[in-house]
Amino acid sequence: MIFGHGDDLYNYESIEHNFSSNVWQHPDHSGLYHHLADHLPLLTTYPEPDAESLRVLIAQTEGIPANNILLTPGSTSAIYLLASDLLSVDGVGVVPPTFSEYKNACQLNKFNRAKISDVLRTDFDSYVYGVSALWLCNPNNPDGYTIPRNDLLKIIKKNYLVTFLLDMAYRDFTNVPMPTAAELLRLKNVVAIYSLTKKYSIPGLRIGYIVAQRELIASLKNKIMPWSINTLAIEAAKYLINNKVNPDIKTILAETKRLWAAINNLNGYEALPTSTNFFLVRIDFSDSTTLKDYLAREHKILIRNASNFEGLNNSFIRIATQLPDENAILVKALNQFSQLHHDKP
Amino acid sequence: MIFGHGDDLYNYESIEHNFSSNVWQHPDHSGLYHHLADHLPLLTTYPEPDAESLRVLIAQTEGIPANNILLTPGSTSAIYLLASDLLSVDGVGVVPPTFSEYKNACQLNKFNRAKISDVLRTDFDSYVYGVSALWLCNPNNPDGYTIPRNDLLKIIKKNYLVTFLLDMAYRDFTNVPMPTAAELLRLKNVVAIYSLTKKYSIPGLRIGYIVAQRELIASLKNKIMPWSINTLAIEAAKYLINNKVNPDIKTILAETKRLWAAINNLNGYEALPTSTNFFLVRIDFSDSTTLKDYLAREHKILIRNASNFEGLNNSFIRIATQLPDENAILVKALNQFSQLHHDKP
Repeated sequence: MIFGHGDDLYNYESIEHNFSSNVWQHPDHSGLYHHLADHLPLLTTYPEPDAESLRVLIAQTEGIPANNILLTPGSTSAIYLLASDLLSVDGVGVVPPTFSEYKNACQLNKFNRAKISDVLRTDFDSYVYGVSALWLCNPNNPDGYTIPRNDLLKIIKKNYLVTFLLDMAYRDFTNVPMPTAAELLRLKNVVAIYSLTKKYSIPGLRIGYIVAQRELIASLKNKIMPWSINTLAIEAAKYLINNKVNPDIKTILAETKRLWAAINNLNGYEALPTSTNFFLVRIDFSDSTTLKDYLAREHKILIRNASNFEGLNNSFIRIATQLPDENAILVKALNQFSQLHHDKP
Repeated sequence: MIFGHGDDLYNYESIEHNFSSNVWQHPDHSGLYHHLADHLPLLTTYPEPDAESLRVLIAQTEGIPANNILLTPGSTSAIYLLASDLLSVDGVGVVPPTFSEYKNACQLNKFNRAKISDVLRTDFDSYVYGVSALWLCNPNNPDGYTIPRNDLLKIIKKNYLVTFLLDMAYRDFTNVPMPTAAELLRLKNVVAIYSLTKKYSIPGLRIGYIVAQRELIASLKNKIMPWSINTLAIEAAKYLINNKVNPDIKTILAETKRLWAAINNLNGYEALPTSTNFFLVRIDFSDSTTLKDYLAREHKILIRNASNFEGLNNSFIRIATQLPDENAILVKALNQFSQLHHDKP
């Protein structure tokens, strides 16, 4: 287990505006709450051992057979499970900066002795050398960089000897075309990871899934614990899928564009390009630790200190778009911090 | 993951009386449901990475330091986690018949090549030979056999070179004196496993914990996934502990005694001794598969076919006590099945 992820909200007493998590903070879950309140006695029964009914529902939604899917308690859990199955490969690559759990999961699984390489994005222009498996987050956390469908499929096909461990947690939060699970499944060298946490804003419930060739799914299934998705999580996911409680991506991305431009207009901040609802900001006059403390203390705002992403440093923060009013509060607070510094004698 | 556990209720359409699970089926959770309904928005926030607040609360309740505790998503998950840490030991013992996940967890962790031995209960009279770690379920599933506090401590102290992996999931469902977690912690060669599932009748939520020396807890913590207990589960557990929503053991055990005697009085059934709220029954005129099917089909009653416990066979079922009215219905149905057979020409 590593600490220092985003959404360390529980460490703060009085945060009012949370820009720290890249989970969309403003879903309309009134219908879900009503439904779950009626189904709370489910907590007195064991879950289905492998969440069968939810697995079948997700398979229908993705248009793939149910035995190509394995549900996991969150997509991070899927990452650890896959890492434990990679022991036989020669070398594993990651593309920094990216989600730190890929490396961590490999290291926990005795990969300290094997080779974990950094693969640069520019490497995709030709072939990916030196690794037999590659972790790829698309859209990427923390910067929102996204390889579009056609390019992604081309890269995967070209590198047919490399197994792509493709984390699609943020696929629903971009306008960039994404391959479907069915398309990925037809390429034999892809294992795709999905997150209901991100899609439905339910990080508290812990549900993700892996889409892969059925032989791999069968082998992973032997390694997973029975009853690993809890009954309330299963019930909630079924409700959300059946009732199509999807986020309003168009509005979220339009607001991201506005927030991104507003921050870029401030003195001393550079917002880096993104294709999704979160993005990196580089500070040129202070550091991310000082800024994070200032925003929490003076403005009850929580941001993500991005300095612990490999390849980044103490000049980077990550911001996830919130509602227009909150975004305005953030921009004002960032501006105040900049003025405090630039007014110094 | 293995299948064939108890409480396969989800496989049946029309069961009305469930004697199959050894989780107490009749908790009063009205207060819990009210509390959770008010806290459903917790599902939109990440859990604390290691369920810190619940861990501290459990530590206070057990009277031990919080860094001697690791929370796990159910006690089965604790078993798998411990098995993955046992690779370096010479040989592991189990005491059949017992919960099948001990062996399964060891086998999944490459123990097929190492030695997994069966240790007989009578071995405890002298020393336990040939193993360096021993799985011990006390009270034991499936038969309710329970080693009392003083004897248990004596056995553990005597075999100081053996690590006891002591599953205490059912400790709250017996009148037999049990050692406290603090007492077990003082013996360096015990790792204890606890289950909130059993104590509070919340199998749907998945919460268990390990009590052990802090060095082991620290090492196990590195292997567990972040956010492995979901927010609703944490909130529910805190409510149940703070409000002391404990089962009425005295009444449950008195009713077990009545049900046990009533079954023993029937023609062709032998109820085996137990110290808890569930027990084995041996059938001498038919088999457990036929009986289970008959009860489900004709009486909407679900029982546990105990034939897949190692050391048992198709003559054994497991019964967990329910409310007096339901128990009477079971006794009547068992009697009818017996009469059907004994009336045959």
